[in-house]
Amino acid sequence: MNAIILSVGDELVLGQTVDTNSAWISQQLAAVGCGVLAHVTVADDQAGIERAIRDALPLCDYLIISGGIGPTEDDLTRQALGVVMNQPLELNEHWLRYLEEFFQKRGRSMPPANKIQAMIPRGAKMISNSAGTAAGIDAISGGTRIFVMPGVPKEMKIMFTRDVLPHIAGAGKGAVILSRTLHTFGLGESSVAEKLGDLMNRTRNPSVGTTVANGIVSLRVNARFDSREEAERRLDETADACRVALGDLIFGQNDETLPHVVASLLANPEPETHRARTVSTAESCTGGLLAKMLTDIPGSSRYFKQGWITYSNQSKYERLGVSMEIINIYGAVSENVVESMAANARRLAKSDYALAISGIAGPDGGSATKPVGTVCIALAWADAADKKLSVVEKRTFLFPGDREMIRDRSAKMALTMLRYHLLQTKMPF
Amino acid sequence: MNAIILSVGDELVLGQTVDTNSAWISQQLAAVGCGVLAHVTVADDQAGIERAIRDALPLCDYLIISGGIGPTEDDLTRQALGVVMNQPLELNEHWLRYLEEFFQKRGRSMPPANKIQAMIPRGAKMISNSAGTAAGIDAISGGTRIFVMPGVPKEMKIMFTRDVLPHIAGAGKGAVILSRTLHTFGLGESSVAEKLGDLMNRTRNPSVGTTVANGIVSLRVNARFDSREEAERRLDETADACRVALGDLIFGQNDETLPHVVASLLANPEPETHRARTVSTAESCTGGLLAKMLTDIPGSSRYFKQGWITYSNQSKYERLGVSMEIINIYGAVSENVVESMAANARRLAKSDYALAISGIAGPDGGSATKPVGTVCIALAWADAADKKLSVVEKRTFLFPGDREMIRDRSAKMALTMLRYHLLQTKMPF
Repeated sequence: MNAIILSVGDELVLGQTVDTNSAWISQQLAAVGCGVLAHVTVADDQAGIERAIRDALPLCDYLIISGGIGPTEDDLTRQALGVVMNQPLELNEHWLRYLEEFFQKRGRSMPPANKIQAMIPRGAKMISNSAGTAAGIDAISGGTRIFVMPGVPKEMKIMFTRDVLPHIAGAGKGAVILSRTLHTFGLGESSVAEKLGDLMNRTRNPSVGTTVANGIVSLRVNARFDSREEAERRLDETADACRVALGDLIFGQNDETLPHVVASLLANPEPETHRARTVSTAESCTGGLLAKMLTDIPGSSRYFKQGWITYSNQSKYERLGVSMEIINIYGAVSENVVESMAANARRLAKSDYALAISGIAGPDGGSATKPVGTVCIALAWADAADKKLSVVEKRTFLFPGDREMIRDRSAKMALTMLRYHLLQTKMPF
Repeated sequence: MNAIILSVGDELVLGQTVDTNSAWISQQLAAVGCGVLAHVTVADDQAGIERAIRDALPLCDYLIISGGIGPTEDDLTRQALGVVMNQPLELNEHWLRYLEEFFQKRGRSMPPANKIQAMIPRGAKMISNSAGTAAGIDAISGGTRIFVMPGVPKEMKIMFTRDVLPHIAGAGKGAVILSRTLHTFGLGESSVAEKLGDLMNRTRNPSVGTTVANGIVSLRVNARFDSREEAERRLDETADACRVALGDLIFGQNDETLPHVVASLLANPEPETHRARTVSTAESCTGGLLAKMLTDIPGSSRYFKQGWITYSNQSKYERLGVSMEIINIYGAVSENVVESMAANARRLAKSDYALAISGIAGPDGGSATKPVGTVCIALAWADAADKKLSVVEKRTFLFPGDREMIRDRSAKMALTMLRYHLLQTKMPF
């Protein structure tokens, strides 16, 4: 059982409006086990709409169309559908009366243009619209059932949920697609795929695919089975298998972000003191981004008290006591400098942990030995013998991309270093 | 001259990711007079990709494909293109070396899976990717020129702008659509529309429409004329009319952001000393976001030296010398506290300006007198008589929305206060 989703509208092909309807409809269809072959978007042009309908009909069980059924001259979906089905448009008296009453209630008479909204191809059924004047159309052509809905997302969603989805869900007899997304950070997409091995085999069900967004490599697990129970069980199994293959590289799932995960690890109280752990930050090239991420989370004041942005060398010395000699000998972007930043930030803030970042975000400032993308990160924690002293782990990374990417990856890597430390496992990169 | 835009990815047809690439590409094409016939989206399925390419080729001058050229088994666009073009995939030695070096620089050897990214159909050209490992493909089939780009929006946009659009723009003759976007911050969309009046008439050419994104109300001016010269002239005229209607409310155009604009105002040297002005930051609820915005701009070290994130009351006192008495009497979210934060940050950092923010970002922490969204912002500058002393402007705002929106609006409003001060005009809200 499969569908093609067709969206109609000049504003869509001109790029003035991002099509969110298709993604929403796809999610609804997936949940009842109806696969989606394609999304197609065409302009308010009758020949183009006709061609899109004609091309789609032989391929799919359901053709879900939205848009182009308003009252104006550029609304041409019903006309195109009539031509493809080779059926004349007929007036639906019932909907015409509804339209007349709709305007009457608002103290106006119906503009003549709206009459077209009561016309549908002969043999088709009208779907009433409780939120507007554009009725939908329910038609059959060959082996394909066609639903036409308004393009306005709000009206479309009401109609789809009430009058379209139940027909498709009923036909599917229980088959469902359930999905889960698992997130990793630190290794590239190909390395993640290598570790997953056969799990990524294209013929596997549940299937595992990878996507990348802002340095986060995510695994999408899709389980397609006849019953929800089986889909759930098999989805769990495959997600577990991914966790076995990738271990702690997986930091979270679905809506969870790195800051979320670090926040909940920090909030986990210390066995001795029953208090949440705290972290402070000392940032150079990220300019506050790391602290911003840590405070994205509601309730972050439990674990985050303060941070420094020491962008200039002078401020690294004045605010955090990094010695000018160290800066002059090793450079501001060095493990020695971030070590000193982290240890001193931890001491001043009296926090359990401190993270420090100094790097070359570009586009300028790179050199042969320290190219743009070179970033040093340090994590300080309490020495076991004397809690006032710090133990510092420091690392140097080379991140690809532009200024924004380098800053983003730097902050995420700092969170990742803290995350592995809190998990008490070694970072695998 | 027309194009079809094809997007490839399971996450798109499953509705897990909304396709924003197609709208963006459409806008770019419209700007050079290239019409878009359709957007088509298919899954990571080779037969489906082949069919989509085959269906599109006879209809369009340009086929713009994004997605499906990563290194993993579910990336099948290059294979599908090879089949449709009836050409074998050949190894591009140049890109293979680039890939090997890419991994070498990062201290790793190239995973074998990545080799596929150096393969393209015989006769096609490779398009280099400055932001990742997925090179693009430039091919011709029949009368259609085909461009294949990565699906990652950021990489796609860089490649499209540098290596795809110039070919299409050069081919266009005659009628063009030119666009310009003017950005405002501080007033709502309807207030902006009211000030624009007749300029927003739907039948006007150039047309003026408004869009809102992240609190920025933007005017999009589209000029559609037969010649580029006329379109440019008329676009300038309408943009000028918008500036007359809105004055300094317009802070920038096209890609310019508030940080850009503030950065260039600060970089403007002082008449007396010929040096750039500097700004420091003291943030509570925004947690580093304001400093992050100020350092988004390359070369920000000219005007930004340091900042504090004083999230806890204790840190406001210890780091910035805000008296505990003031905090206890007026509360951490008060004009008195941000006044002290700004004046002391300016003094400690020896900067020309200092911005301070303290507010209730939510979801918790609100009260009847200070609901969630209450944010106090202060701007400190040098007293004319004694430059070591600060004059402080302070304001209280009530921002709508969730935690992320409130933090975003707070940082933007702080930048806006500084912008109006640097322009020496009064903020109209």
